[in-house]
Amino acid sequence: MSITEVVGSQARLTAADIYNSAVASWAIAAAWEVGVLDEIHKAGAVQADELAVRLGLDPVAARGMYQALAAVEVITRDGDTVRQGPLFAEVNQYRSYFHWLSRGCSGLYTEMPTVLKRANRVGSFYQRDAAAISYACRELSTFSFDPAFWTAMERIPFSFSVVADLGCGSGERLIQIVRKYPGTRGLGIDIAPAAVEMTLAEAERNGFADRITAVRADARGLEPHPSYEEVEVLTCFMMGHDFWPREDAIERLSTLRELFPRVRRFLLGDATRTVGYADRDVPLFNLGFESAHDLMGQYIPTIDEWHGVFAETGWKLVGEEAITSPAASVVFELE
Amino acid sequence: MSITEVVGSQARLTAADIYNSAVASWAIAAAWEVGVLDEIHKAGAVQADELAVRLGLDPVAARGMYQALAAVEVITRDGDTVRQGPLFAEVNQYRSYFHWLSRGCSGLYTEMPTVLKRANRVGSFYQRDAAAISYACRELSTFSFDPAFWTAMERIPFSFSVVADLGCGSGERLIQIVRKYPGTRGLGIDIAPAAVEMTLAEAERNGFADRITAVRADARGLEPHPSYEEVEVLTCFMMGHDFWPREDAIERLSTLRELFPRVRRFLLGDATRTVGYADRDVPLFNLGFESAHDLMGQYIPTIDEWHGVFAETGWKLVGEEAITSPAASVVFELE
Ligand SMILES: C[S@@+](CC[C@H](N)C(=O)[O-])C[C@H]1O[C@@H](n2cnc3c(N)ncnc32)[C@H](O)[C@@H]1O
Ligand SMILES: C[S@@+](CC[C@H](N)C(=O)[O-])C[C@H]1O[C@@H](n2cnc3c(N)ncnc32)[C@H](O)[C@@H]1O
Repeated sequence: MSITEVVGSQARLTAADIYNSAVASWAIAAAWEVGVLDEIHKAGAVQADELAVRLGLDPVAARGMYQALAAVEVITRDGDTVRQGPLFAEVNQYRSYFHWLSRGCSGLYTEMPTVLKRANRVGSFYQRDAAAISYACRELSTFSFDPAFWTAMERIPFSFSVVADLGCGSGERLIQIVRKYPGTRGLGIDIAPAAVEMTLAEAERNGFADRITAVRADARGLEPHPSYEEVEVLTCFMMGHDFWPREDAIERLSTLRELFPRVRRFLLGDATRTVGYADRDVPLFNLGFESAHDLMGQYIPTIDEWHGVFAETGWKLVGEEAITSPAASVVFELE
Repeated sequence: MSITEVVGSQARLTAADIYNSAVASWAIAAAWEVGVLDEIHKAGAVQADELAVRLGLDPVAARGMYQALAAVEVITRDGDTVRQGPLFAEVNQYRSYFHWLSRGCSGLYTEMPTVLKRANRVGSFYQRDAAAISYACRELSTFSFDPAFWTAMERIPFSFSVVADLGCGSGERLIQIVRKYPGTRGLGIDIAPAAVEMTLAEAERNGFADRITAVRADARGLEPHPSYEEVEVLTCFMMGHDFWPREDAIERLSTLRELFPRVRRFLLGDATRTVGYADRDVPLFNLGFESAHDLMGQYIPTIDEWHGVFAETGWKLVGEEAITSPAASVVFELE
């Protein structure tokens, strides 16, 4: 029995832990983005200043980052030597969760006093960094949704040539699909101009400019378009909650059947609202996911609430893959 | 011996603790600003939705805030009832530290990947929210610098009629001085337009528009001005580090003697760089203070480094008050 278990659900954090963790979450996101986490992961131990200079970082500024990582034991410091701390492996694996929060959603949370006020909740009353969220979600998907996604793809019992991805983000999913299935083409649809640009740029960079295209559109209210009529497989990851609340979800999912008449398989993967965790035990990422959407006024359904809508949309649930992290995540296989 | 002591300097945090704390730090800052912390402090227990509505908050958005506070045990939730959690008292007392960090310095930390890069560190390469920092520092000062400040004020062995405050922030210090010493006048000097505006507005609101004025100027490079020649007491709180590094501090503090020839007492209060704490044990606030200034490239001296400059500036250290929180903070009494 470890000490953590002994402590159980008692107060384990101090105010300084909370505070230092807030600094550290930003430092984790930055240390990933500038390459510091990868270097420490590879080498085990690094020289703080030497690494900073090698990566083009200011060594004094980098000290601020190292100090924050060390305060929460992601790293340990011994003079100029930096080593992996007790939390390094877990934090490095899940660094995209921290990036999503502290880079992608910082604008939303920083303006929380304004966002909370009823009177301000009109028009575009919050901002997030769409480019940062795409960056984070690309890696986040690799260990969470991707394994379940590929399992579901391999179960598709027909061959296909056109795939559309709703909320395509960085474009990574389409790139992987066209790479794996020769001769197929991909259409990305995203509401954020930054995501559409990123998808087009990444398709180009990967040599798929002729097989992948992307358009800016709101998946909740698409207009009919000839190119939609060719699509045979529809995918939608980490944005399905945007179809909700319930009445809207039923209508919007039904409409997708009409807009994409030839689609025979719809893979819908998303995190859902956790149920049954004590406040103190909410797993990594879910608190951010749920509280951010509460702040934005975007309903997050539970898995059971999802189960309760499909019958009314005309889609039939033929398979389902559960995902461990983020907790309560799932890929639905619809036809 | 408490469990925390048993655990000692071992890894106590989990990755989820770090993550949830980052969300919670924003929630603490917001819950203070919108009045939720004060209500819970006063009433002990509140109804979550009722309180939200009474304060003009959206109840669903407020749920995101409550959930984050509960995840780190600042509050506990039982249905709709919210109570003070084990960390409530400490967090509520030091809420200004969280606000300073997560509202005031969010811009700096969110852009850390850009800020870290040497090539970007020219011009104004970071941004903080000056109005939020003034708001936080006004309360922060009440439990940290103010007691030591008033002790030092009462030790001034002469009567005076004009006080100047360098880095006047919200103007609160000047307001309190002119309130306490009838017939005195105050001059605020601040580099941030938002702080100058706030000082003028607060002076007006408190009925001291005729006794307090404020100007925008950089205390590191003031031009001589007739109004400076009347000043007999100089105060400077939470910005003394801006005079550093050492050679600059010596020159700038010396220059202040020339610019303010009639000043006979200079009260200089600031947090300093902690020395001798293990990375894991850095006290509340100091990690934010130190890492933020490392990121901005602003040198933070230790107490000993301060002691080593006065002799060369012509100021004589005649007294010194130590402050417990923020750790390693001090008010120097100079003449
Ligand atoms: C969390 S990201 C996930 C990106 C990508 N699907 C993945 O799996 O990595 C969600 C994406 O959905 C997009 N999105 C959100 N609401 C949308 C809507 N109503 N219509 C189209 N795209 C939307 C966002 O702009 C963002 O790029
Ligand atoms: C942390 S706040 C403290 C405010 C106030 N002195 C108090 O005790 O609450 C620091 C203030 O110093 C101001 N400041 C920073 N550098 C300055 C400079 N070089 N000249 C004048 N003011 C400066 C900032 O704009 C800010 O208002």
